[in-house]
Amino acid sequence: MQDSFDQKKQSILEEISTNGPDNLDASPKGTIDEHCIPIINLINKHKDMVTTSSCSGRVSVFLEGVKSADSTSIVAKGNYGRWLFVTHDPKDLDNWYDSIDFTYDTTRFPTDNGTRSILYKFEAVILHVKCRDETTAQRLYILAMNNGFRESGIGNNFNVAIRINIKLDIPIGFTDAESEKLRCFVNKEYLEYITLISHERFRENFKKLDQLYGAVEKMMTEESNGEAGSKKKNKYAESKEERRERMIREGLQRQQSMKKLKE
Amino acid sequence: MQDSFDQKKQSILEEISTNGPDNLDASPKGTIDEHCIPIINLINKHKDMVTTSSCSGRVSVFLEGVKSADSTSIVAKGNYGRWLFVTHDPKDLDNWYDSIDFTYDTTRFPTDNGTRSILYKFEAVILHVKCRDETTAQRLYILAMNNGFRESGIGNNFNVAIRINIKLDIPIGFTDAESEKLRCFVNKEYLEYITLISHERFRENFKKLDQLYGAVEKMMTEESNGEAGSKKKNKYAESKEERRERMIREGLQRQQSMKKLKE
Repeated sequence: MQDSFDQKKQSILEEISTNGPDNLDASPKGTIDEHCIPIINLINKHKDMVTTSSCSGRVSVFLEGVKSADSTSIVAKGNYGRWLFVTHDPKDLDNWYDSIDFTYDTTRFPTDNGTRSILYKFEAVILHVKCRDETTAQRLYILAMNNGFRESGIGNNFNVAIRINIKLDIPIGFTDAESEKLRCFVNKEYLEYITLISHERFRENFKKLDQLYGAVEKMMTEESNGEAGSKKKNKYAESKEERRERMIREGLQRQQSMKKLKE
Repeated sequence: MQDSFDQKKQSILEEISTNGPDNLDASPKGTIDEHCIPIINLINKHKDMVTTSSCSGRVSVFLEGVKSADSTSIVAKGNYGRWLFVTHDPKDLDNWYDSIDFTYDTTRFPTDNGTRSILYKFEAVILHVKCRDETTAQRLYILAMNNGFRESGIGNNFNVAIRINIKLDIPIGFTDAESEKLRCFVNKEYLEYITLISHERFRENFKKLDQLYGAVEKMMTEESNGEAGSKKKNKYAESKEERRERMIREGLQRQQSMKKLKE
């Protein structure tokens, strides 16, 4: 009989295998980012891990929603907020501004609260991985941290979020309260420049994703070579607490095995 | 005798209590941010938690370092990278650009790799809290997530990082390779505008920090009222895995107690 982790994993893998343009998932884009597919497939080969969500990194231009009078939230996604442009692929990035009907005016800035901001963003790769147990979650977390994914963390139920600090978050324009005219308060040369910078960010992003792939692959090879047991202690710097927990667990397993043998 | 958590906590509290202009800590600023002091003091009253580092949120203007020829890293902090401006306090934010010797030119952008970028950043509050055990770490993590700190995570040794997604990350200028002249490729009106936006970010940041304070306070009041024991299960939604681990641990403790009694 399958345990609950295996059941969950099987159902996720079925979703992933049937995902495509004709069968969208719950994400805004509806399909898995192409650049994530190799690492998703790799991680899902690990018997104690399964990927639950991912984004390979993206550039987006977002027009924030209408703020309600009592709202103090800074970026209102609801209330008609919408993406003016999104790409996960640097090949589709150049000249993005030509697809938006901007009025350029570097002298006019929002003067009241009725305006809605336009933000240009670079967001880096993010991966969520559900692990079978604490030990696996800790191992993946430490691997991510050691490979520069310094904003990673373990959440509930051994879910590891793998995050890295590569970003841009730039106000580039606004719409007036009365009209829907998209005003850009930086010049086109500036937009060209941040596009160039975004290509750098994408390169760094994919380099780190490759590095992460290599590190996970190496860990899995070592584990399947049976080296994990003997090298784990040094490689993953088991803490005092982890050691104590492991000893308790192993001790209990031994007791249970002995009990079964006697029965 | 103190256990290792209590020893660590005592040593941290001693550091905090003597920290000040005459006794700097290892952070760039050397002292604890004023706006963090209330929540630090609150959290440190909890017998199973101790704060290990914090930043209350800040605006910074950073001139990146010289890139080495083989480096592909996007922001080089080493090699003469330096802050042109930093503040943790919105009171000191206005007119920050007057303290920097900028040459404004919205037509000139970097053309080769020898240039160094100038970035304007808003970074939100971040708190690191070391907890005594997994249960406490999980409780604090869930509390943070439920209060909008959606980039929080648990790291090694029950260290909880409390993070929120409020930010700005804006390229505003560069220096030529040959000179140290600080060139700004956005106009002063744009700098005034992002200053205004940063005040909004600060307000949102402190509002969330207050909310977090209130939530931690409420949790501690409930715990000290002895309600924690009976309400915990519903409030913190113990997972199947957590329950299993707890049962194992409690079972083992019972066994050990029984064993001791028999001896």
